[in-house]
Amino acid sequence: MHNARVLPHYLVSRYNGWRATTFAENRAWYSRLADEGQRPRAMVISCCDSRVHVTSIFGADTGEFFIHRNIANLVPPYTPDGNQHGTSATVEYAVLALKVAHLIVMGHTKCGGVAGCHAMCSGKAPDLEEDSSFIGRWMDILRPGYERISDLPEPDQVPALEREAVMISLENLMTFPFVREAVETGHLTLHGLIHDIGDGTLLQFDGPAGRFVPV
Amino acid sequence: MHNARVLPHYLVSRYNGWRATTFAENRAWYSRLADEGQRPRAMVISCCDSRVHVTSIFGADTGEFFIHRNIANLVPPYTPDGNQHGTSATVEYAVLALKVAHLIVMGHTKCGGVAGCHAMCSGKAPDLEEDSSFIGRWMDILRPGYERISDLPEPDQVPALEREAVMISLENLMTFPFVREAVETGHLTLHGLIHDIGDGTLLQFDGPAGRFVPV
Amino acid sequence: MHNARVLPHYLVSRYNGWRATTFAENRAWYSRLADEGQRPRAMVISCCDSRVHVTSIFGADTGEFFIHRNIANLVPPYTPDGNQHGTSATVEYAVLALKVAHLIVMGHTKCGGVAGCHAMCSGKAPDLEEDSSFIGRWMDILRPGYERISDLPEPDQVPALEREAVMISLENLMTFPFVREAVETGHLTLHGLIHDIGDGTLLQFDGPAGRFVPV
Amino acid sequence: MHNARVLPHYLVSRYNGWRATTFAENRAWYSRLADEGQRPRAMVISCCDSRVHVTSIFGADTGEFFIHRNIANLVPPYTPDGNQHGTSATVEYAVLALKVAHLIVMGHTKCGGVAGCHAMCSGKAPDLEEDSSFIGRWMDILRPGYERISDLPEPDQVPALEREAVMISLENLMTFPFVREAVETGHLTLHGLIHDIGDGTLLQFDGPAGRFVPV
Repeated sequence: MHNARVLPHYLVSRYNGWRATTFAENRAWYSRLADEGQRPRAMVISCCDSRVHVTSIFGADTGEFFIHRNIANLVPPYTPDGNQHGTSATVEYAVLALKVAHLIVMGHTKCGGVAGCHAMCSGKAPDLEEDSSFIGRWMDILRPGYERISDLPEPDQVPALEREAVMISLENLMTFPFVREAVETGHLTLHGLIHDIGDGTLLQFDGPAGRFVPV
Repeated sequence: MHNARVLPHYLVSRYNGWRATTFAENRAWYSRLADEGQRPRAMVISCCDSRVHVTSIFGADTGEFFIHRNIANLVPPYTPDGNQHGTSATVEYAVLALKVAHLIVMGHTKCGGVAGCHAMCSGKAPDLEEDSSFIGRWMDILRPGYERISDLPEPDQVPALEREAVMISLENLMTFPFVREAVETGHLTLHGLIHDIGDGTLLQFDGPAGRFVPV
Repeated sequence: MHNARVLPHYLVSRYNGWRATTFAENRAWYSRLADEGQRPRAMVISCCDSRVHVTSIFGADTGEFFIHRNIANLVPPYTPDGNQHGTSATVEYAVLALKVAHLIVMGHTKCGGVAGCHAMCSGKAPDLEEDSSFIGRWMDILRPGYERISDLPEPDQVPALEREAVMISLENLMTFPFVREAVETGHLTLHGLIHDIGDGTLLQFDGPAGRFVPV
Repeated sequence: MHNARVLPHYLVSRYNGWRATTFAENRAWYSRLADEGQRPRAMVISCCDSRVHVTSIFGADTGEFFIHRNIANLVPPYTPDGNQHGTSATVEYAVLALKVAHLIVMGHTKCGGVAGCHAMCSGKAPDLEEDSSFIGRWMDILRPGYERISDLPEPDQVPALEREAVMISLENLMTFPFVREAVETGHLTLHGLIHDIGDGTLLQFDGPAGRFVPV
């Protein structure tokens, strides 16, 4: 904490520019958002990856999306054991406190976390199997997905695992009683997406058909 | 999973607009980022709150920031116990795999998570004390901060606790051996910010002085 | 060489200040840039003029822009004759070695080089026609632009020639086989700008429309 | 030219921020600079490298430095043959038209151009020997420097060649009659610097001593 340092100057400069333009132009709305609280229509769970900014892709307004970003956009199964579950806390807050109408899980291509999971599950990254590997233990959430794709030809496995990361998260979301109830009573809809960061395409999961299709 | 639904039309519409404009204008760069991988200069840990989008405030280019967003921008202490620690995984990935040069914790005013923590710690929200409350258990990370601010006059407590959320996260970051080492060898600098969502101001934590000052 | 002198004290003083502040705040990033090499997103070709600093206008981070500055931001046509072509070397390095995604030619108002070219082409500066005039021979690159603007009313000619300096450079860039290929395969986009140094405005060249428009 | 595209949005955003802050705060000075012309004290010749921005290192004000940036901060010998010599044109303009009082050649460590020259001269990059290589022909300016450092131990050669790039440019500057005259009559002083981009140090060439020393 005593090590905390001042911001690099170029960020201060840009912040000052933002304040003089974007902020100034939206002052009334920001002020209302501060006074009345947020009321986002949707929650988005996406990856920390610097190449995937959902606010850009969906032209999001301030106040529109409640956004959780973690490694590989994963949601663990419902486990109310009194331990810290940061992702589960975000889902609980979005569904019970904010009552969002949509919950969107957005995966992406070239995901480093998914590639790491594939390496771990196929025996090529023993260090990720250690208890001390936070990345490895986190990617355990995706391990059941590896079982489902390990018979595919090698070059298809990682892309298929990226899709599993979305499908497993959707499955796990339904293990949360409050998510299931909101979905079943029609208060919440779930959505699964895959964004290709190179060619910009977007696929969505078609639940009844059980596969991804272009939006 | 079978419940996954197609995207609302307004989002498809905006996505198509993004693809015809922003994507088209940046195609070459996105393609390079996909082929060569990301190389972000900084990791930002901020809140899921829909009113706080760090990419806007700092005019970020795609590829510049690796962003983790959770409830109240918290980092738990280092606990390599083999359990799932999603936030710790993001820090591990940013520092060890991406070797980011800056780690910025950005808190904000009017934080619902912090307000919940204050209610819980002051005995006004017994439900958050339940084992089954993911939010409560997550906000336990901030409990030591409550001890430090509970003697303040009532109206000052929540704003002070918002600052504690940043300071405790900075402290906890230093309990990760790989963070400490990167800081001590000069490969990483830590930064703590508080963004006021209503009036747009930005404070930064001045480590040696032990307090927040305007940028 | 034996005439080289120590730096004026005011520059040493400012350098020391930079080292104690900007450098210290960015040490980790500078160290990474030194170890891993640069990976700029864009090349900018602008004028040497002391009134035009592109890093300021665009809030550039260190490592973001590869910048060539010459008189009047000119690019000569592709001429692989074994002679020294400093500007062509910078374009070759940016496109083939660094694989930048954007190439921005930024002209500006009140350009001394363009004014000199106008004087030369309109017969008012015979000394610039001499073989020994490096400026005159360099400004020959812009001579075809003079042909296109010499019928305009006198006061419009120099501003029009400043725009020609950008347009001709864009045309000449497309005569480089490696630039053309990168553009045609979507790996590179070209941009033409005019910055008004007095009133701060910025125009961009709209290729399909064939004219400059405000950004 | 017809391929020219609009600027990426993040740059437009940052430009708008610059206009609302830096420009607005300096409007009077920018307006005077536009009306009265530039009057820079010094010319700086530095590299295009995105990691070396002399305006940052020396806290330059708008209007202070006339800056030429090329590959490896090289100046060719005086060759008034009627061909295009972009760098010589910048020197002519700075010394004869602007009458700058200082001419600073600033080299830097980890220079890609110098490394390429070393590879070429030591026989490891035959493609750079081709007539069609603009980079190779440009780096020929530094070839005499290779002769002077080729007996050094291998690891010392590239750093020594980076210094030669500065020394040879200073030598070549003195072959320009108008530079020599300005130096000899005391109207101009020459300076040679090496900036270490990783550790931020700055060395200057001590002419009488014939070596680089810390500033």
